[in-house]
Amino acid sequence: MHPSSQPLLIVISGPSGAGKDSVIKALQARGLPIHFVVTATTRAKRSNEVEGVDYFFVTRQRFEEMIAQDELIEYAMVYGEYKGVPRRQVVEALASGKDVVLRVDVQGALALRKQFPQAVLIFLSAEDLDETAQRLESRSTEEEEELRRRLDTAKWELEHLWEFDYWVVNRRGQLDQTVDTIIAIIQAEHHRICRQRSLP
Amino acid sequence: MHPSSQPLLIVISGPSGAGKDSVIKALQARGLPIHFVVTATTRAKRSNEVEGVDYFFVTRQRFEEMIAQDELIEYAMVYGEYKGVPRRQVVEALASGKDVVLRVDVQGALALRKQFPQAVLIFLSAEDLDETAQRLESRSTEEEEELRRRLDTAKWELEHLWEFDYWVVNRRGQLDQTVDTIIAIIQAEHHRICRQRSLP
Repeated sequence: MHPSSQPLLIVISGPSGAGKDSVIKALQARGLPIHFVVTATTRAKRSNEVEGVDYFFVTRQRFEEMIAQDELIEYAMVYGEYKGVPRRQVVEALASGKDVVLRVDVQGALALRKQFPQAVLIFLSAEDLDETAQRLESRSTEEEEELRRRLDTAKWELEHLWEFDYWVVNRRGQLDQTVDTIIAIIQAEHHRICRQRSLP
Repeated sequence: MHPSSQPLLIVISGPSGAGKDSVIKALQARGLPIHFVVTATTRAKRSNEVEGVDYFFVTRQRFEEMIAQDELIEYAMVYGEYKGVPRRQVVEALASGKDVVLRVDVQGALALRKQFPQAVLIFLSAEDLDETAQRLESRSTEEEEELRRRLDTAKWELEHLWEFDYWVVNRRGQLDQTVDTIIAIIQAEHHRICRQRSLP
């Protein structure tokens, strides 16, 4: 009699400006046996981003090919650019027994839940919408109109919080605590009865 | 917008011989803000046990009074002796905002679930039934017939594992890991969406 739980599909989502990227980087730095999915996108690479690490940056033509050939588990048009989750990466990592961590927007997380009812959906948020706004403003790349659009989206996303499994607040200056909580969630989920491959 | 989760009622259960007592003692030693419920029992105090710490040792008459006055959330006759969970302790601790940890047998855990659907049920087991048997045998107090009875009960209890929320295996020599897992479960449960007092 041994518990042997299925590998987990962990979806980290939440409004833009909640700090998803920083949290995932800090989680990666812990060196756990987790596969972090690299998303494909058609948007322009920011100066601090690395191809194949932060994203796969692909042309619009290539992206639409991926859609046509069903190579994406989930994709969305976000602020006029495509973002999508490559199916093969997820399937292969889960098959090898590894937990998989995905970063998607709220709309994408809810779409994933339909395909993978067993996914663990974590809603990451800043302490409040004001802080979300501050974080968005501090990215000098935002135009005022885009900023407003992002804030409207953040409000819509908050309304869908209850469809998630967990809510983790990423408090300013407490990144380590946020990551600890996510690791606790992963550890706990592996012990959930409904995730055991076989029961005695 | 702040997550504010309800205090948890955490039920640690599992077959006799799984190491519930050691696990709870080690959990207590971590000094977390948790109320550990002291069970009332009519059985004889073992030499290493302390009144009011390990159990409240009460007479059969007093226990039946407690039953009659509805002072117990749950009680059972175990191996010919009463064991029960004092209601006031649990209600007061939860009302003060503290998490509450209870130790009950499997039958009791399933009964508690009916009264407290939101309780977190953790099934603690040894690695296998052989080890359960070894642990029971190492308690020199067991008669052969009682040992067999306990093993039969352990088998029945294992069949009810799937009615729990979590399964934690208390591996020999890895008590700290067992406690870490339980703490992770408590931490994760506080972040579950369904436990939030209010959502935005």
